Amino acid sequence: MRVALVQEKWSGNKEVALKKSSDAVKEAAANGAELVVLQELHQGPYFCQHEDVELFNLAESFEEDVKFWSSVAKQNSVVLVTSLFEKRAAGLYHNTAVVFEKDGTIAGKYRKMHIPDDPGFYEKFYFTPGDLGFEPIQTSVCRLGVLVCWDQWYPEAARLMALKGAEVLIYPTAIGWFDGDTEDEKKRQRDAWITVQRGHAVANGLPLISVNRVGFEADPSGQLDGIRFWGSSFVCGPQGEILAEAATDEETILYADIDLKRCETVRRWWPFLRDRRIDAYDGLLKRYID
Amino acid sequence: MRVALVQEKWSGNKEVALKKSSDAVKEAAANGAELVVLQELHQGPYFCQHEDVELFNLAESFEEDVKFWSSVAKQNSVVLVTSLFEKRAAGLYHNTAVVFEKDGTIAGKYRKMHIPDDPGFYEKFYFTPGDLGFEPIQTSVCRLGVLVCWDQWYPEAARLMALKGAEVLIYPTAIGWFDGDTEDEKKRQRDAWITVQRGHAVANGLPLISVNRVGFEADPSGQLDGIRFWGSSFVCGPQGEILAEAATDEETILYADIDLKRCETVRRWWPFLRDRRIDAYDGLLKRYID
Repeated sequence: MRVALVQEKWSGNKEVALKKSSDAVKEAAANGAELVVLQELHQGPYFCQHEDVELFNLAESFEEDVKFWSSVAKQNSVVLVTSLFEKRAAGLYHNTAVVFEKDGTIAGKYRKMHIPDDPGFYEKFYFTPGDLGFEPIQTSVCRLGVLVCWDQWYPEAARLMALKGAEVLIYPTAIGWFDGDTEDEKKRQRDAWITVQRGHAVANGLPLISVNRVGFEADPSGQLDGIRFWGSSFVCGPQGEILAEAATDEETILYADIDLKRCETVRRWWPFLRDRRIDAYDGLLKRYID
Repeated sequence: MRVALVQEKWSGNKEVALKKSSDAVKEAAANGAELVVLQELHQGPYFCQHEDVELFNLAESFEEDVKFWSSVAKQNSVVLVTSLFEKRAAGLYHNTAVVFEKDGTIAGKYRKMHIPDDPGFYEKFYFTPGDLGFEPIQTSVCRLGVLVCWDQWYPEAARLMALKGAEVLIYPTAIGWFDGDTEDEKKRQRDAWITVQRGHAVANGLPLISVNRVGFEADPSGQLDGIRFWGSSFVCGPQGEILAEAATDEETILYADIDLKRCETVRRWWPFLRDRRIDAYDGLLKRYID
């Protein structure tokens, strides 16, 4: 299965962004990709750098956005993973991945379950935690375990997707550096982000696709110094082996060929699912065990 | 906190092994280590390469072994993590880590919870899965999340230790290559083993110590081609950053200085425990979700 990851800079304008991303999907399809994954909140800026009620307007177009990406999937006959700002009701919004089948129908949705809230990433203000659970989405290419960004740090999320038969883990993402951090600290953070995800691939015997933004975005409020998204979109195999990795500072369409049969072999060698101690995992349902 | 990891080859003789390992503990203590970790089943060969009822004799000395390592901990005034073959009753044996306090008292025990069974690693024949759960062991240096080898592949085990207040994750280990595998495959396996553990460190904001055997051990039954243990013992910090790493083919005492206060800082930046979706993790207690 050939996959394509679209790693982009924010263009400053939604119309330009839609054109650029849909052109990328077209190019990816022309190059043989059957599955195309876009980065987190790809049709706008990473608007969570400050809290502003006006920004909920960005979600007003959700239905229209779904129609647009449906047509992009259909025109290019690809399975397409998008990441949109969903207005569900007044005062109720989600960070939602919508997955389209090759014919443009909606294959499924995933609403980001783990929501961060850190300086520059004020997502708890904008996004209600998802209520659709960790449900893989069946598509014509395979069963997709779609998660979003902060979910990347949670082995529980990846494991639940695996237990429900996901065949690949997919993370649209927006993560970056603060320029004020030391180079050592930046390296540790990026490496940690890659490592924890490769670890999910290993623990579950599944390939993994992670697509990040790239480029600098200023904080419009001027309170913080902005975020330099570190790109580094990557694909790894079921042993966590890197199959493709993008640069930290360039827009790109990254391709990889995923061998789904390899997972069967790897899981026969390392049958981790066989030995889980489900009789002793009760504590995982607790916040903390004091 | 200075830690030492004793990575050794099997010497072919228990008496020699006890002398070599206890000398290493002495040297580590002289070099300022407060915590010393030995590899899995360090006082014998990796005997699980074939199934032989006579080999249960190796567990007959368990009480005597505990006394021996107690005296080693006391003589050197170190917290010592050992890995022993425990006879609990006739026909009931465990792969047990016994942890000693600096005064030689037993700080606690951990019985390996996840038991492998693969060609060359016939552990289900020898070891009953542990029934002590995932309980950290309080010591004078800090609270140790001791696990053993195959547990390394289970994010659940590391998470439960973290939820119970472990301050460092520790894995005595025996893992290696089959010489018949390709160099690519060997690289993928070793990298996967390191990566998944670094991932546990990241996901839980905890440092991690992993101590592996090194050297070749033939299969006494002659059925398989033996195991070349890949060493690579390592220590990483709470962002998964490598603090020290041993060679793949040499005996060594590996040292690292762990900054326990760093974990507090890292967890403030990346407060993963805050956002766990315990309301949606029920499935983790299921074998598989069909």
